[in-house]
Amino acid sequence: MSKELTPRNENYSQWYQDLVLKADLAENSAVRGCMVIKPYGYAIWEKMQAQLDTMFKETGHVNAYFPLFIPKSFFSKEADHVEGFAKECAVVTHYRLKKNPDGKGVVVDPDAKLEEELIIRPTSETIIWNTYRNWIQSYRDLPILINQWANVVRWEMRTRLFLRTAEFLWQEGHTAHATKAEAVEETRKMINVYAEFAEDYMAMPVIKGAKTENERFAGAIETYSIEALMQDGKALQSGTSHFLGQNFAKAFDVKFTNKNGAEDYVWATSWGVSTRLMGALIMAHSDDNGLVLPPKLAPFQVVIVPIYKKAGQLAAISEKVGEITAKLKARGISVKYDDKDTKKPGWKFAEYELKGVPVRLAIGPRDLENGTVEVARRDTLKKEVVGVANIDEFIAGLLDEIQENIYKKALDFRAGMITKVDTYQDFKDILSNKGGFILAHWDGSSETELKIKEETKATIRCLPLEYEEEKGVCIYSGKPSKRRVLFALSY
Amino acid sequence: MSKELTPRNENYSQWYQDLVLKADLAENSAVRGCMVIKPYGYAIWEKMQAQLDTMFKETGHVNAYFPLFIPKSFFSKEADHVEGFAKECAVVTHYRLKKNPDGKGVVVDPDAKLEEELIIRPTSETIIWNTYRNWIQSYRDLPILINQWANVVRWEMRTRLFLRTAEFLWQEGHTAHATKAEAVEETRKMINVYAEFAEDYMAMPVIKGAKTENERFAGAIETYSIEALMQDGKALQSGTSHFLGQNFAKAFDVKFTNKNGAEDYVWATSWGVSTRLMGALIMAHSDDNGLVLPPKLAPFQVVIVPIYKKAGQLAAISEKVGEITAKLKARGISVKYDDKDTKKPGWKFAEYELKGVPVRLAIGPRDLENGTVEVARRDTLKKEVVGVANIDEFIAGLLDEIQENIYKKALDFRAGMITKVDTYQDFKDILSNKGGFILAHWDGSSETELKIKEETKATIRCLPLEYEEEKGVCIYSGKPSKRRVLFALSY
Repeated sequence: MSKELTPRNENYSQWYQDLVLKADLAENSAVRGCMVIKPYGYAIWEKMQAQLDTMFKETGHVNAYFPLFIPKSFFSKEADHVEGFAKECAVVTHYRLKKNPDGKGVVVDPDAKLEEELIIRPTSETIIWNTYRNWIQSYRDLPILINQWANVVRWEMRTRLFLRTAEFLWQEGHTAHATKAEAVEETRKMINVYAEFAEDYMAMPVIKGAKTENERFAGAIETYSIEALMQDGKALQSGTSHFLGQNFAKAFDVKFTNKNGAEDYVWATSWGVSTRLMGALIMAHSDDNGLVLPPKLAPFQVVIVPIYKKAGQLAAISEKVGEITAKLKARGISVKYDDKDTKKPGWKFAEYELKGVPVRLAIGPRDLENGTVEVARRDTLKKEVVGVANIDEFIAGLLDEIQENIYKKALDFRAGMITKVDTYQDFKDILSNKGGFILAHWDGSSETELKIKEETKATIRCLPLEYEEEKGVCIYSGKPSKRRVLFALSY
Repeated sequence: MSKELTPRNENYSQWYQDLVLKADLAENSAVRGCMVIKPYGYAIWEKMQAQLDTMFKETGHVNAYFPLFIPKSFFSKEADHVEGFAKECAVVTHYRLKKNPDGKGVVVDPDAKLEEELIIRPTSETIIWNTYRNWIQSYRDLPILINQWANVVRWEMRTRLFLRTAEFLWQEGHTAHATKAEAVEETRKMINVYAEFAEDYMAMPVIKGAKTENERFAGAIETYSIEALMQDGKALQSGTSHFLGQNFAKAFDVKFTNKNGAEDYVWATSWGVSTRLMGALIMAHSDDNGLVLPPKLAPFQVVIVPIYKKAGQLAAISEKVGEITAKLKARGISVKYDDKDTKKPGWKFAEYELKGVPVRLAIGPRDLENGTVEVARRDTLKKEVVGVANIDEFIAGLLDEIQENIYKKALDFRAGMITKVDTYQDFKDILSNKGGFILAHWDGSSETELKIKEETKATIRCLPLEYEEEKGVCIYSGKPSKRRVLFALSY
């Protein structure tokens, strides 16, 4: 397969697809809508998981595991929830196969029909709150601060690798609290954790905000999200945190005795990010040459390629590389030495550019003589020759610089792609000609929101948590408005 | 719920069940046969995962992720495989629910029937080898050394927490090789990794061996297992590694061009351990007071309990505990300080004994005066008063000692529970009166093996890899035999 990617400005969507496949991140499987996450893609996901898991634990959470299956009857208990998920549920109806009596292969054994069908979890609020009922009697049992790393299934009709797949990997936090205030605080705390992760690790600026009623999680009182901007000017919702009020406690009869001895329903939150973050990461920074990975999430941060003509030269180079590698590893920098002799340096350079390795070192016989090494950075594609003596210090600084630079580049891009508009005509013009985030006044009604969506496909991404009060009129209805909200086309 | 466990000698099985529930490790869920792994249990599993994952990576493996679903037709492609798993498959037949037209709740939408049913993976050989077909053309694409951490479902009729559940968590390695020798070597390498993990981390001695044809994995040419002995004298298969030959390559048409330019089918292995290891860990060491955890897998290795009468004393104790904790953490020792004032020290002592925390420190006003701390170890239940000055060094040494002691205790127990027998009568006597592993001669036939199983319930656990050639006669048939094999009743 050619390493060439379709250029972004020719066909952005094809560029993304090419990149995911050619950088060996993921591919479609034989099962409709389900992907195979390949080792290089999974290594990035593992880096994300490790950091998120650390951040969850630092904020007092513990991990647990709940069943993959949800009895169908649980699903109907919270009215909005079932409404939101019923149309995309994979359903287990039987528990046995048998030999096909008419010939080859196997058939579902009709005698092994389940009394009650089981839903593959699309999210776990129902099975978890049914469990919490037995864990909570008194305020002393609260809060419960649990996270789960799991696979979930939502039978999406149109799927795209990482961005929307029938099965995906995610984490889902499910917390239980004695007071509304505490649950609201948890909801906000976790959207902040997600924003911090997106910005400090993915190098991807995000806007935190509240979703409108239409866009809320099915069963939530309030949904916060982080919204990132992709290079094609579309928004990508990258994480959500939901204040669920007492909805699930009421649906599953989860009561507790509070400090005053009175009985009350428990307050809930849930929050999640998924392998969709991989899609965000890929699209946020990469270019027509391939992936650009922030050093903090790169499976290996440095690749070293030996440049030599005679086999005898390789031994001396490898010895020097051994020294360099040891020094880099001592600083916690991950390194791959690619001394495979079946590929030429030029092929390797292209390969590691495609895979987004932040720093590439090339070292040849002349470098050995001069005590130098060639350093190439992936983000700017610039090369320089550097003395080998303090290479570890140099690379450590360079990795920090790359991490910052990638973030700054994405931030600058976004800054140029947030437009304030005051008329519906301008709104439509910006959407067609520029894209990006649009800050505009809205009258607060679902009706207006849906009309705008119908006419332009743009949605209200969120009501940003940071905003200025400003009197204006709704771009669609002309009714008065107190603040601007964030519109965009989205993934 | 009372903290008291049913004593082992009264009802071992009830003791296990009590312990899993009361130590907050896991519980049954609302879904038949599926468990909820609670935070304390999951924390132990995370420790296991982290160590195994490190060992897999050190032996050259990488992680990836394949779909939860397997098309039904894939399943039939390897004849033995489908035979082995067809009877316990959860089957997805529909992908949508809709409102019940007759009233409340939801029903499966009959219009959303899948063309081909999907099986929830009971193991992933079929979906993975179908994928490998596209990844492998030449010997240069080999070996593929992939592991997957995942949930799997086997619709077991009789389930027990951790030991046998319909859904369980596991890892499954799936490797592809250019030669038979390399695949056989991989199969052996991984059973050695499992044995090393069981002995060095779980402190659980195991016997490595080959399974008989009857007990092999469905589709394998050779299955190696590690067999551990539980305190009730029953064996527990704790991990398996399979040499699959070219069976799956043939079933899924996975060919490659070898170094000589000839086409051949690819050689395969697979290997796995699951949350069943949790059951093994619990049963291997624990006693009538609760869990006994090896320090290397304990969620926290040290718990500190303050002993005080007046609130004013707590501040001074907590200050000293802060110093101790800092010193312990600097050595990589995990510590929990339980200064909750809602529970008395006696309650806490019982609680942490139940939870198997390896070392408990108690510290009161007199200890502050004397510069001492009371140290209690969970394995022997012995206490001593120790100077606080070098407490970190002392505890570090103690944790090593406990890890060793637990292993040695299990090893001594097992040594006394391996019996050589030469007659069928002795075999049956030992089985009824003593249990444990029995080394006996066997004629090598499936018929004999099945007869013995039918009459005594004992199975051949394995043909140990380490054995002495020794002429004898089969205890059942009297036919000649060259070696003893390992029998036991098992989980």
